[in-house]
Parts: sequence; structure tokens; C-alpha cells
Amino acid sequence: MSVYLHDIPLAQARERFQQALEKAGLWGVLDVETIPLDEHAAGRTLAQPVWARLSSPHYHAAAMDGFALRAEHTSGALPSRPVVLLIGEQARYVDTGDPLPEWANAVVPIEAVEPLDARGQPTPDPRHPHHIRLREPLPPWTHVRPMGEDIVATELVLPAGHTLRPIDLGALAASGNARLQVARRPRVGVLPTGSELVPIGQPVRPGDIIEFNSVVLSAQVNAWGGVATRYPITPDDEEQICRRVKQAAEECDLILLNAGSSAGAEDFSASVVARLGELLVHGVAVRPGHPVILGMIHRRAGEDVPVIGVPGYPVSAALTGEIFVRPLLDTWLGRVPDEPVQIEARLTRKITSPPGDDDYVRVVVGKVDDTVLASPLSRGAGVITSLVRADGLAIIPRGVQGLEAGSSVRVNLYRSPGEIERTILAIGSHDLSLDLLAQELARKNRRLVSANVGSLGGLVALRRGEAHLAGSHLLDPQSGEYNLPYIRQYLPGIPVTLVEWAGRLQGLLVARGNPKQITGLEDLTRPDVTFVNRQRGAGTRVLLDYHLSRLGIDPTAIRGYDHEEYTHLAVAAAVASGRADCGLGVLAAARALDLDFLPLFTESYQLVIPTRHYESILLQPLIELMHTPSFQQLVQGLDGYDPSKMGQIMAKL
Amino acid sequence: MSVYLHDIPLAQARERFQQALEKAGLWGVLDVETIPLDEHAAGRTLAQPVWARLSSPHYHAAAMDGFALRAEHTSGALPSRPVVLLIGEQARYVDTGDPLPEWANAVVPIEAVEPLDARGQPTPDPRHPHHIRLREPLPPWTHVRPMGEDIVATELVLPAGHTLRPIDLGALAASGNARLQVARRPRVGVLPTGSELVPIGQPVRPGDIIEFNSVVLSAQVNAWGGVATRYPITPDDEEQICRRVKQAAEECDLILLNAGSSAGAEDFSASVVARLGELLVHGVAVRPGHPVILGMIHRRAGEDVPVIGVPGYPVSAALTGEIFVRPLLDTWLGRVPDEPVQIEARLTRKITSPPGDDDYVRVVVGKVDDTVLASPLSRGAGVITSLVRADGLAIIPRGVQGLEAGSSVRVNLYRSPGEIERTILAIGSHDLSLDLLAQELARKNRRLVSANVGSLGGLVALRRGEAHLAGSHLLDPQSGEYNLPYIRQYLPGIPVTLVEWAGRLQGLLVARGNPKQITGLEDLTRPDVTFVNRQRGAGTRVLLDYHLSRLGIDPTAIRGYDHEEYTHLAVAAAVASGRADCGLGVLAAARALDLDFLPLFTESYQLVIPTRHYESILLQPLIELMHTPSFQQLVQGLDGYDPSKMGQIMAKL
Repeated sequence: MSVYLHDIPLAQARERFQQALEKAGLWGVLDVETIPLDEHAAGRTLAQPVWARLSSPHYHAAAMDGFALRAEHTSGALPSRPVVLLIGEQARYVDTGDPLPEWANAVVPIEAVEPLDARGQPTPDPRHPHHIRLREPLPPWTHVRPMGEDIVATELVLPAGHTLRPIDLGALAASGNARLQVARRPRVGVLPTGSELVPIGQPVRPGDIIEFNSVVLSAQVNAWGGVATRYPITPDDEEQICRRVKQAAEECDLILLNAGSSAGAEDFSASVVARLGELLVHGVAVRPGHPVILGMIHRRAGEDVPVIGVPGYPVSAALTGEIFVRPLLDTWLGRVPDEPVQIEARLTRKITSPPGDDDYVRVVVGKVDDTVLASPLSRGAGVITSLVRADGLAIIPRGVQGLEAGSSVRVNLYRSPGEIERTILAIGSHDLSLDLLAQELARKNRRLVSANVGSLGGLVALRRGEAHLAGSHLLDPQSGEYNLPYIRQYLPGIPVTLVEWAGRLQGLLVARGNPKQITGLEDLTRPDVTFVNRQRGAGTRVLLDYHLSRLGIDPTAIRGYDHEEYTHLAVAAAVASGRADCGLGVLAAARALDLDFLPLFTESYQLVIPTRHYESILLQPLIELMHTPSFQQLVQGLDGYDPSKMGQIMAKL
Repeated sequence: MSVYLHDIPLAQARERFQQALEKAGLWGVLDVETIPLDEHAAGRTLAQPVWARLSSPHYHAAAMDGFALRAEHTSGALPSRPVVLLIGEQARYVDTGDPLPEWANAVVPIEAVEPLDARGQPTPDPRHPHHIRLREPLPPWTHVRPMGEDIVATELVLPAGHTLRPIDLGALAASGNARLQVARRPRVGVLPTGSELVPIGQPVRPGDIIEFNSVVLSAQVNAWGGVATRYPITPDDEEQICRRVKQAAEECDLILLNAGSSAGAEDFSASVVARLGELLVHGVAVRPGHPVILGMIHRRAGEDVPVIGVPGYPVSAALTGEIFVRPLLDTWLGRVPDEPVQIEARLTRKITSPPGDDDYVRVVVGKVDDTVLASPLSRGAGVITSLVRADGLAIIPRGVQGLEAGSSVRVNLYRSPGEIERTILAIGSHDLSLDLLAQELARKNRRLVSANVGSLGGLVALRRGEAHLAGSHLLDPQSGEYNLPYIRQYLPGIPVTLVEWAGRLQGLLVARGNPKQITGLEDLTRPDVTFVNRQRGAGTRVLLDYHLSRLGIDPTAIRGYDHEEYTHLAVAAAVASGRADCGLGVLAAARALDLDFLPLFTESYQLVIPTRHYESILLQPLIELMHTPSFQQLVQGLDGYDPSKMGQIMAKL
């Protein structure tokens, strides 16, 4: 059977799915089960409202340690004319929480009476006196927790659809409930398919894909109140996939068939769904993730099991979970969906978006001065770090073609706004040691988010108020100084503190053993040598151009001079993979990917920090770390780094 | 041993506890364990930073279905001067995700080429042509996901202290990690003690307390990353408690000894802790919850186990969990604490607070017009519903004596701000049917929060802009009309829509069998009859006073006329408990607590809704429900209710 992918709008896809589920009697709470009220009830969703069977307190309870009495007996008591009550008939000792005797209607605290023995003398055993003396009258119901003060029998304790928190369990027990009717947890089968897949932990060869989507989807299902079963990997074989889907349909309430949902030669999901039931939707206009399949598998007459064909790219897979699986689980649990925390943010970069799609853009969010900023991350559906690093999603709805830089977007936050408040936005030139910094700052209640746009890009971002600091190593070819002339040019009128981070060895990264026998910049123009460059504005690029010019080497004569990468490690990866023969970068990057390194220059990597940020509470842990010997040692541990001047203020502008 | 309770400030208590834990080597991650990377790793906290072992992709991967080739071979291609490449030598078919051949550096999508057979004719099998024709040049690395595009080997994937979300598992697997080093889950023993305690589900007698604190504490511990063990109830016997604590010290990392933490006659916690180890703190200046114990149990030489004596009142117990247990678990898991979502709100009522205490005030939060409002709930440590109903905590720090109504407070939210946005604040006279309304609105994405302040109090709150609607049944003694004269008086200049809710039967609630043979209001002045009243301003109170005046009955001759309750059910509970012989209320309240009912009058219970709210999107589900027959039937099901005019607009002012 041949299948075609035809994207339909998200709302329409959802409606078609819902109608099929309604027809199959699967739109609403799946089943109700009765469970005991204990700590494991937390997280379950009530299938029925719970009404109080018992009041709380269920009796009139003493609210203090003292003596129960009738308030009327104390009327008229004065300091000068005390009232004396006989223990037994007129007063009785009670501990906090004890029930009041039938005849009593107030409690006087033990410290407010004079306990006396039979002879009218103070007794050494204040809890067992013969009688007590009071010098003040008590209103009725003083220091009594009357029956029903907290909960009155028959009142609503919690509504159906409520997901139980720890404290709710207390209220349910206090109101006399011992068993709860909750929604059964939906069973979800997660079926990874694909001949290229290998399980986590096995060695990989080129072309192999580590199968982890099923782990992510299963963890999502479990977190959203379902129970996931992860099936073994099924190869791209229509018959085998059919058998697996039939098996899962017997065992599960929902099937997630991962990958093979597109329309390629080895994409069998759509035809399997069509064979075993009904293919409702093949293709949804959402980005990333459009090759989504929605369908129903016929288990037997009158019994259908919904199936979702989940695209293979990891970002698409995880977002398909959020967009399709989570709402269905909410419906089956009968619970009101959690509402994301939202924030308005200013977009730092233009976003273009296909007008026909709902577009889920992953963004990093931070706050500079009083402005909340959202910076789009990689749009690639295969770039899983774009979801890991995302602080939230900006949803560009169908019909909107994109958004200009500076426009306002609403972001569904993955983090609390408090975390955004303690986020340090670093931008500019990438340095490996910033990973160490992020790691250490995480222990100090700060979050470091780095964007790598090169040294000059960092200065521009600072001018726009889009970051707290910029890492920079811009050599001024005239003065031989680092950064200062550039700061004067790019940040006029902005008070800036320039701080030394570390001295770094720069050199040529070449494959192990230096097979092309490269010895210096002069070799870059050799016809058999392919170079990989850093992007325009990057400090390393300025350094290269400076030395090329000094040596009179024509950049256009260098193969790969136009091939730009944005980080040292990306340059190293290009060399390690054979995509290039050499690139200029730091020693640490060479070590990291087991490359050889030809040292050329030592340069100064500095932090450019607007003084208002340098002095802010937000940055204090970072400033402190720079002066912490144990942190400096960590940086020293990276090959080619000299942190001996770390934290020194090089200039105040 | 005699023990004394001496409150110390929270910060000092924490410091003393931390010092003892540091001395015992228990301040930091407890233990590291290695677990496989699968869906069950979600929720665990990384004990070590995770660095990438593998790049992702770990090879140059085709990003489209098409033909891998060398970009140089396409240079100069033009629509009029196509380039032809031979399959095998110069081009090779690749599916998305396939590795590029060693020699290739770009992919041309299948739809961008002309696939030809050996004779140069279009081939019907586009994936297996003999050669392909291109009419456009390709830059190098087009449609290739280069090795390391997502993750470069050696870079930091996630820092230590990070609690794993589903998507993180994908990034960890993609970067070649198969096992993870995570913090061991701390084992927490929860020990309920008290001779008055009975397990959930057993019949209760006066004085019995249902033991549920251990359930709440255990659920908290599990939710915060620990593993709770709930021990059986231990009676108030110092030796038995000692034995239990010793047992728990062998089995657990932390002991929560619930109740007996005060200084009463049967409070053994402090002396047990002092006997088995060291009593560090007995009493912390926090409200509610001050009789907290902090200590260390000596397991054996050099091995200490911390113990927290948790107060018995349920609100104190749950807050002790949040204040002491959660931060300790965070420390032991090495994770940065979750930050609460905070909101600024206007306080609707004055709060007084002991100046020496950190005071945790439970508040309901809603938004009226553009103002976020926080209304304090019951302050009683025994009122567990004050935590269940709380939308958040307003913390009044030590040193602040209280806050005026109208002042601004910062609230740590338990709910998302989105839930606050869809909260309907109802205030005024209480009616049982509002519980039904709350239940049904929960299914319609609205949250109904009711505060019971009586009909007049409701109108005053509407005037202050502190609620969306008020339930009211105020009889005007002059006109015999309901509500209208009062609305004119209390809400001048505010456009209001007055809507009928239900007709309600009001009458006297008396004990089953009417033992005092009460027949009407005339009997209230009998010396053997005790009455329970509603508070001033309540519609039922106005109704009572109206009829008393008509009958010429002097209120001061009624025993209990000054005893005010705030709801119908509280009046019924007073009668059911024998605290009063009768009270005026609705039939439903009598039925709820199995009382007899002497019908006296039918009155009109109406909703007073400022028209701007009546027309708001927020209230639409409520307006719709009033016109829904199935909902009217639910209300009809309450005895003594006539919902036949429900939803009718009685007046627009």
C-alpha cells in the first residue's frame, strides 16, 4: 500500500482524533478504580467528588492543656473576687485534643488557674488538684475546637478531576474517607521501530541511531499519570511491525509507534495503521514534527485502541508527546490540564515561520535590567539540546509568518520565573571553560546560559542590552591590545568593567599524527589542505586575519576559508571527522577530540561586563568564583589555560 | 527527664541543625549510585556532571532522502547547462539519517534531480537511477547534519545537581551515556506516636484522632525525592517510642517523629531524643508549628541519624515538612531547590502576626479586574482545609508585626498564575449548592472559591472590588423585596445584574425527634432552649430579626443569640453536637447532619453580579451552568431547593 503525507492543521487533526475516540467510547475517564488512602494515593486523580463522611474535629476538642468547665460558672470572677471550682463536678483536667466532657463548654489553660489541694494550698501537682481558683470569667467555647471547625460532614472536600497532593490526603482522611475512587492509569505501549536503531549502551557505527525516543516518551507518559511499557526495537519490516502493534493493542490503551511515520521507502507506520484499523490523520501542520499519524487499531469488534505515529527526530518526538499524548492522558484521567506558567519576552532575533504551521520555537529566557528576553535556539528537529537547553516554548500560531527581532512573544515556561531571575546571560566568544563555570554556578544558585556569537557579536549584544557579559578576545591589530579599542567603538557611553578570564594558547588543530605535515599558517594555501574557519567577528578569526595579513597570505587562496563554525569544539569536530585538515583553535579543543595541536600564539580571553551588571547581586557568585583558588585550578586543568590573572580588573571604562 | 520548650528563630534553628549535620558528615550528597539510563531515571538528580562521550550525530548524516555527492562536482550547473553525475562513483542514494559516504560532502534532495536510466531516459525507479542530472550547484555541506551538530564529544551535557526531566534522558543517551551517577534517594522513617491515634478506616470515638500525618509526610518525602517508610502507630510510652526510634535509626537516614514534640505530660519526643542522642533545638519561632524538635540520634560510634520532631497539628506537620524536611532532602540529593512561583497580591484583610515569629499565612488568591487579591484563610494549626484550599503562602517574616488590609504581600503560589486567572471569587452568604457549583465548574476549566462572610459582607466586598459575585438573600423588612434595596444602598453607581439562584426553605434545625418540643420562634426565649445564631449581616440573621421583631420577641431573651456561626452547616453541626438546641437554617443542612427541620419560610437566594463580571468570559461557564437542566436537577436534588427560576435576571441596576 502506498501512503501519502498530507499536513492538516493541528486543530483539525485534534478534532478528527477526538471524534474517533468519542465514537469508540474512549473520550473521558477510562475506568474508575478504588484504592486505599495511603501515601501512594498522591498523584492520582479523583474520579468522583469526595464528600465529608465525618466532621473534623468529630467532637468538641480541648485546644489547650487545662481544665474543662462550664463558662457560666466563671461569670463574675475578678482578681479580687476569684471563683473556685471543684475538680470532678465542675472542672476536669484535659490535654490538648482531648474531648470535652458532655457538660463542659470551655477550657481554661492550666497556666491561668491556681491549682489547690484539699486544704486550699497550692499543689505541687498542677494537673491533679483538688480544686482550682480563677480570677477572670471565660466566654463559652473559649479554647475549644468545636466539632466541624475544619470540615463539616457532607461538605465537598475535593472535586472530581483533582490530582491529589500530599496535603489533600490529610483532608480526605480527616473527613472519614479511607478508600478513594480514582481514574485508572492509562497503559501506554511505546514501540520503537527502525533497522538503524541500536539500544542504549551498545557500540555504534556510522548510520546507527541510538534508540532513546522510547525512553523519553515513556518517561513523559509516566510523569503525566500513565504507565508506559517500552517494547523491544522492531526492525523496518511491515509484517513484524504489524505483529508488534497487534500485541500492543491487546496490552495497552494507547500505542505510540515511533518513527516510520513519514512517507519514505521504509516508513511502514501509516500502512500498518491502515491495515489494522483506520488511518485518521497522516501529517499535521506543526513544526517541528509534522509527519504525525493519528489512527485507531481494531482490537476486536467494538474495541478500538488509538495509535499515534510519532516522528523519529527527537525534538519532534518529544513535542508530539506534549501536543498529542499529554492531553489524551489528561482526558483519560479526567483532570484539568496543568497550565503552563507564561511570560512575555522580547525576541532577540527574527523568527521566520511557515505560515501554515503551528510553530513551536524553543527559546532561552533571561532578564537583563528590567527586560525579559527570549533567544531562539536551533530550529532543527534533530537538535535535542535545543529542548534540553530551552527555558520555554514560544508558539507561533498558524497564520503568522514570523516575528521581527524586538517584538514581544509569549513564552510557555519550563522553568519558574524565579530561575529566570537568577540567570546570567553570557554571550560572545565561546570558551570551554564556560562549561566549567556553568557547572560551578549551578551549585551557587545561578544559571549560566551561554550563546556563542563570536566576540564582536557579544559586544553588539551588550549594546542592545541582551546579555550580562560577553567573553571576548579581540586583538587590535594596531595597538596589540585586547578588546579595549573595540569596547570603545562598540559600547560608547556604557560604563564597562573589563576582567581578565584566562590566557589561552591558540594554534592549529590537525589530525593525530599531522598527516598533511602542516607546520604553520603558510601551509593553509596548499591545494591539498582544507581549512575550517571561525565565523566573522570571532576573536580567533580576527587573530587569524591579523597574522595572515602580517604574513601576506591571501585568504581567498585558502580552501575552506569560507566554511565557518561557531565554536572551538565545532572546529575540532570538523578536523576530527576529516571534513577539514586543520583549523585555528585552543589546545583544550584539540585534547578534547584527541587531535594534534601546533601552538602558535597565547591570547587573552577576557570578560566584558557592563559595570551595572558587574556590581549586581546576580553576578556576585561569578565574581567570587573567579577569585576562588579551587575554581582556578579547575580551569588550569584544561590544557593550555593560564588562569593566573583570573578576576583582575584590566580596565574600567 | 523534664523538657522545656524554648522557641528560637528559624534561621538559628537551621544553622544549629546544619552544624550538627556537618559535624556528622551528613551535609551534602548522601551517597552516589549508578543506575541504567532508562525511563526510570527521570526524577533522579545527577551526582556528577555528565560530559558527552559521543558526538551527536556521531557521523555526517543525510538530512534528506536524496543523493550524496561532492559539492565541487555540481559547480557551474545551470538550468541550461546541467551537470550529470554517475551513480556509484559520483553520487549515491541515501535515506534521511544515513551516513554520508567518506568521499561525499553534500546531499541533493531526490526531488531536486532528474533520475535517468542507462540510456539517459527518466527512470521509473527514482531511488535506483543509473545517473542523475542537476541544474543547480550545491554549496558544501548542504542537507547534511554534520557530526557534532547537536552535541560535540567532551562538552558538558548536564551539570551535577540537575534533576532529570524526560527530554534530558534523550540528550544523555545521544551523547553516549548509558549509565548515570545519581544521588541515592534518602530513606526517611515516619513514626506516628500517640495513644489517641487510630489508623485510617477504623471507627472513631470522641477523643480518637485519625492518624494521617504520617501519610501526608510520607507522600511529601516521596514527592521530594526521598523514600518514605511509614512505621506503625506507637502509643505514648517512652520506652516503646525509644525502641521504635532505635529501630528506625538502623533503617533510615532521617527520622520524622510525629507529635509528642511539645512539652505536655505525654510529650516524650524531646526526652527520647535527648536519651538516644542530642537534642539540638526544642521550639522554633515559626507559626504555625513552633514545637519543632531538631536532634541527632547516635546510631553507633561515629554514626548519627538526624531526627525531626514534627508537631501534631496537621497544618504544622505539613509546614514542618516544607520548612525542614524538603531543604534537607534537597541537600542530600545535591539539588538546587525548586523556586516557588511568586505573585504580588493585595491583602483583603488585616493580618496580625507575632513579631518574633516567621508566620506562614495560607491565602486564597484570585484576580478581580486587574488586581490580584490574597485573602487569608483560617490561621488555626488544626484546620487542614486551610492548606488544602490555599492557593499559596504569604510569609510574614520575623520582625513584622502584621499587615494592614490593602497592603501588598508576596505570595508563594501553589498554583500556576494561569489557574489564578480562571478563578471565580464568590463571597457573601454561604449556600450548600455552591459546593455543587464548584464541582461542576471544575469540569469547565474554572475554579470557584467561596468565602462565607454573610450577605451584607458580600455586598461590601463587591464594592471593594474583592469578588466577582456575591450570594445574597437579604430581605428588606419594608418592601418585602430581596436584595434590591441593599444593592442600591451598598453598591451605588456600580452596574449590577441580579440573578435568581434558587428558592430555599428556611426553618428551625432541631435534634432528631425534637426533644425540646420546639414549634416556632416563640419557643426561643424558653429558659431550657439554647439557640445558635448566624453572624450579623447574614441573610438568615436578617430574616430572623425581621420575624422576631414582627412577633415582638426580644432577642436578648434568647439564650445563645450571641453565639454566631458563619455557615448553615456550622449551625447544623452545633445542633447535632448538642451545643445548641436549635438554629435557623436551610433544610439541606438539617438533612446533611440528620436533624429534624421545622419549615418556616421560603426565601430567595440570589447572585449579585457586577455587570462587567456578568458579561466577562471568566463567568460564562457559570452563566451557562445556571441554564443547564442537568445542573438544575443536581440542585433540585438538595432537599428544600427550588431551582425553577435559576439564571433568570431579576434586575439590572
